[in-house]
Amino acid sequence: MSSDAVMPTLRAFVAERDWAQFHSPENLAKSIAIEAGELLEEFQWSPEFDEDRVRLELADVLTYCYQLADRLGVDPEAIILEKLAITREKYPADKARGRSAKYDEL
Amino acid sequence: MSSDAVMPTLRAFVAERDWAQFHSPENLAKSIAIEAGELLEEFQWSPEFDEDRVRLELADVLTYCYQLADRLGVDPEAIILEKLAITREKYPADKARGRSAKYDEL
Amino acid sequence: MSSDAVMPTLRAFVAERDWAQFHSPENLAKSIAIEAGELLEEFQWSPEFDEDRVRLELADVLTYCYQLADRLGVDPEAIILEKLAITREKYPADKARGRSAKYDEL
Amino acid sequence: MSSDAVMPTLRAFVAERDWAQFHSPENLAKSIAIEAGELLEEFQWSPEFDEDRVRLELADVLTYCYQLADRLGVDPEAIILEKLAITREKYPADKARGRSAKYDEL
Repeated sequence: MSSDAVMPTLRAFVAERDWAQFHSPENLAKSIAIEAGELLEEFQWSPEFDEDRVRLELADVLTYCYQLADRLGVDPEAIILEKLAITREKYPADKARGRSAKYDEL
Repeated sequence: MSSDAVMPTLRAFVAERDWAQFHSPENLAKSIAIEAGELLEEFQWSPEFDEDRVRLELADVLTYCYQLADRLGVDPEAIILEKLAITREKYPADKARGRSAKYDEL
Repeated sequence: MSSDAVMPTLRAFVAERDWAQFHSPENLAKSIAIEAGELLEEFQWSPEFDEDRVRLELADVLTYCYQLADRLGVDPEAIILEKLAITREKYPADKARGRSAKYDEL
Repeated sequence: MSSDAVMPTLRAFVAERDWAQFHSPENLAKSIAIEAGELLEEFQWSPEFDEDRVRLELADVLTYCYQLADRLGVDPEAIILEKLAITREKYPADKARGRSAKYDEL
């Protein structure tokens, strides 16, 4: 389970600004994609990057992910673990070791 | 701070498959954008959505975000709070209330 | 100006399937981002790529771009040239030569 | 086939700035995803949009798509038509009419 600190803080931030009206799951999914693009821009022309800028862009993606999780009524860290159990099945360690192939090509 | 449970579990999953070699920050940033696109696909033609599918796609985005945070040596929930403090300055509650405008248009 | 062949063919394809109802500008913008993610997936773990797969993923992005241009009532190649004139101003050849920096850092 | 005007103009623009060194297929794929995110940002909180801004963001996506096509040695409009022939097979008009379902759900 995620810590108790972040979600109430994010909720208060949104409530103070009356922004929940904009935070439909669809709009949050768009926002995650938009921020993921901004994060990727830090690597647009080179694998080298600025740590501070990348950290703050990553924080933007994470923030919208947490807000979407909250709209779905789920805990961010719990769903990471839920999905990991599925991925373990699709990518058994002995078959997937050292390979980046998709599961249907293993 | 994030809970203690998730990051060690993710690290073990990657180590068992010898996948750290693929997880450069650049590749993780690409992966976040790719998974964000898959999440968005759940809303491609309509704001209506399937909760189970959205939850699992969101988990994929979150997983790569956690892995990038780990590569940067930072805690996911700590950087959400770090960025929130910056966003508070850019979007004061009294100016931003009920508006979706960007900060430079407030 | 783009050739005369493609747009009428795309329009007929959409009309035969009665899909114009789904092709709002917003949905087409989502679709472009989704397909851009699929294109990027071809490069997820390596700069090496499969030419056939990349070509077909690129075609998907282009198809939705053409459809959005059509919804806006503009010609795809005309707007490339319109934007290029703006970019020329922001990135003068003598300042931008051999540099990938953004215009506000030149 | 695309018109004869755009590709030579784009090539000259890149050559004058010595930017071909940055335009690997991987970097162009990243750039397409980044610009697709900026286009999507025009629709972040609402389906309403500013025509001028959307047109110019779409032009950015198209420009990188044309440059990637050029790197692959293919014509943008030719590959749209190539892919359309494949999509016709996957989405027969009589089955797909008025439905936004994916081909494997038709």
